[in-house]
Amino acid sequence: MIIGIVGLGLIGGSLGLDLKKQGHHVLGISRRELAIQRAISLGVVSTASVNMSLLSDAEVVFICTPLEFIIPTLEQLIAHLPSSCVITDVGSVKTPIVRGISPVWQNFVGGHPMAGSTESGIEAARSNLFSDKPYVLTPINTTPTKAVTIIENLISQLGVNIHYCSPEEHDKAVSLISHLPVMVSGSLISTCERESNSQVHQLAQKFASSGFRDTSRVGGGNPELGLMMAKYNREALLMSLQKYRSNLDELVNLIEREDWVSLDQILQSTKQARSKFVKE
Amino acid sequence: MIIGIVGLGLIGGSLGLDLKKQGHHVLGISRRELAIQRAISLGVVSTASVNMSLLSDAEVVFICTPLEFIIPTLEQLIAHLPSSCVITDVGSVKTPIVRGISPVWQNFVGGHPMAGSTESGIEAARSNLFSDKPYVLTPINTTPTKAVTIIENLISQLGVNIHYCSPEEHDKAVSLISHLPVMVSGSLISTCERESNSQVHQLAQKFASSGFRDTSRVGGGNPELGLMMAKYNREALLMSLQKYRSNLDELVNLIEREDWVSLDQILQSTKQARSKFVKE
Repeated sequence: MIIGIVGLGLIGGSLGLDLKKQGHHVLGISRRELAIQRAISLGVVSTASVNMSLLSDAEVVFICTPLEFIIPTLEQLIAHLPSSCVITDVGSVKTPIVRGISPVWQNFVGGHPMAGSTESGIEAARSNLFSDKPYVLTPINTTPTKAVTIIENLISQLGVNIHYCSPEEHDKAVSLISHLPVMVSGSLISTCERESNSQVHQLAQKFASSGFRDTSRVGGGNPELGLMMAKYNREALLMSLQKYRSNLDELVNLIEREDWVSLDQILQSTKQARSKFVKE
Repeated sequence: MIIGIVGLGLIGGSLGLDLKKQGHHVLGISRRELAIQRAISLGVVSTASVNMSLLSDAEVVFICTPLEFIIPTLEQLIAHLPSSCVITDVGSVKTPIVRGISPVWQNFVGGHPMAGSTESGIEAARSNLFSDKPYVLTPINTTPTKAVTIIENLISQLGVNIHYCSPEEHDKAVSLISHLPVMVSGSLISTCERESNSQVHQLAQKFASSGFRDTSRVGGGNPELGLMMAKYNREALLMSLQKYRSNLDELVNLIEREDWVSLDQILQSTKQARSKFVKE
């Protein structure tokens, strides 16, 4: 197939590598001349340009820009595409994207490949980044079945585990397991850093070890990502935070009341429940 | 020196290995005959017994039982010890231990070697477990200087980084970086597990990856440890939880008000602050 990739970073670049290897003709678009040159020299794309008219024959286009540029990019893009072209995106929040794009372009299938790396940019692109990882598709009732089938067939070639759900279900699920942890973890760091007893603050820095390291990792990560989650998945995240607060309050109340039997039951249940979410 | 170790698990066993290697005569005490046999065959102690009278010539005794048995063990122990014997412990909470023991045995120095392993028991004992790790001593104003010096000299031989503070400062610091993370992390698991929308609950299980895995690790750990922290460090933990709640509420309020500038500032500051606590 003739496939366009708009946005040549870690995700766009890694998609290009895998799709090109499968024999597709991959056309790259980036606003940055440097990314285009690197994408060509790294073999991530067949050819690339800053000019969207390169995609006039594209059968499928992946929009791989940062979340906030997905809709503006699509609005620019559609003037250059045949109406049969199926567009998909890789944004980590789906409701605003899918609900915003569907009235504008019918052949759109929301997508979210759940793979990543601590590195970013075209230089970090690599083969098989998505292999054995979840890839979520979020068609809605107006999405043409044929468009979904085309995207499904394509991403199957990446060795991903495909999941289907509504944009809203996707956003609620990721608010729980991805966006909530960032806020929970960030608040832990703030609490330790803002300790007003300077001796205790210094000791805490010296004593912090693997427990603090792991629990604080995502809260000390890329601030842009945290901000993006809050902005674009605000409603689901606030709901998850509200539920989190009531779970935390329950623990606080048990400790206040010295109800060790109930606290033990909860800690037993979290130990068991974790194994359903984490395969180690 | 003649050194007694009461409680032959991971910590007691690992201390025995290192101290014996330094040329000390190490006497082990356990309530369990099996642990005694294993300690002898693993070379963790010079000799061992279920009978505390073995320690009648001990110059230093390390109490390495679980936290709740430290004071009861000491109460049994002192009938068998010369009054010059310096006792120390390895409990992870210090205030109740130190304040409880000092009136009973003057030559007592509270201690906390901050090393561990996911494994436990005498079979998990290993050399150099404490090497380059923090080892906290919490003498109070009635603790004889000579007793502190004896413990300091001994544990220096383990290659540890010695820190001094009051039992209360120790407990506040560990409540922040060790005990608070368990409750924060456990509440995250409860929130995800208790999701009432069954489709979202299932998707959350499928989508959970490294962010959830790391943030949930200590909340899905040994329930006995979590319970012990809450029981014995209740006051400091409740204080830390209260501060945590107000930090979390601040994030919730910013997201509700869509104050992205302030949220960005906080996420920038947590990223910077984390590097003061975590050396990676």
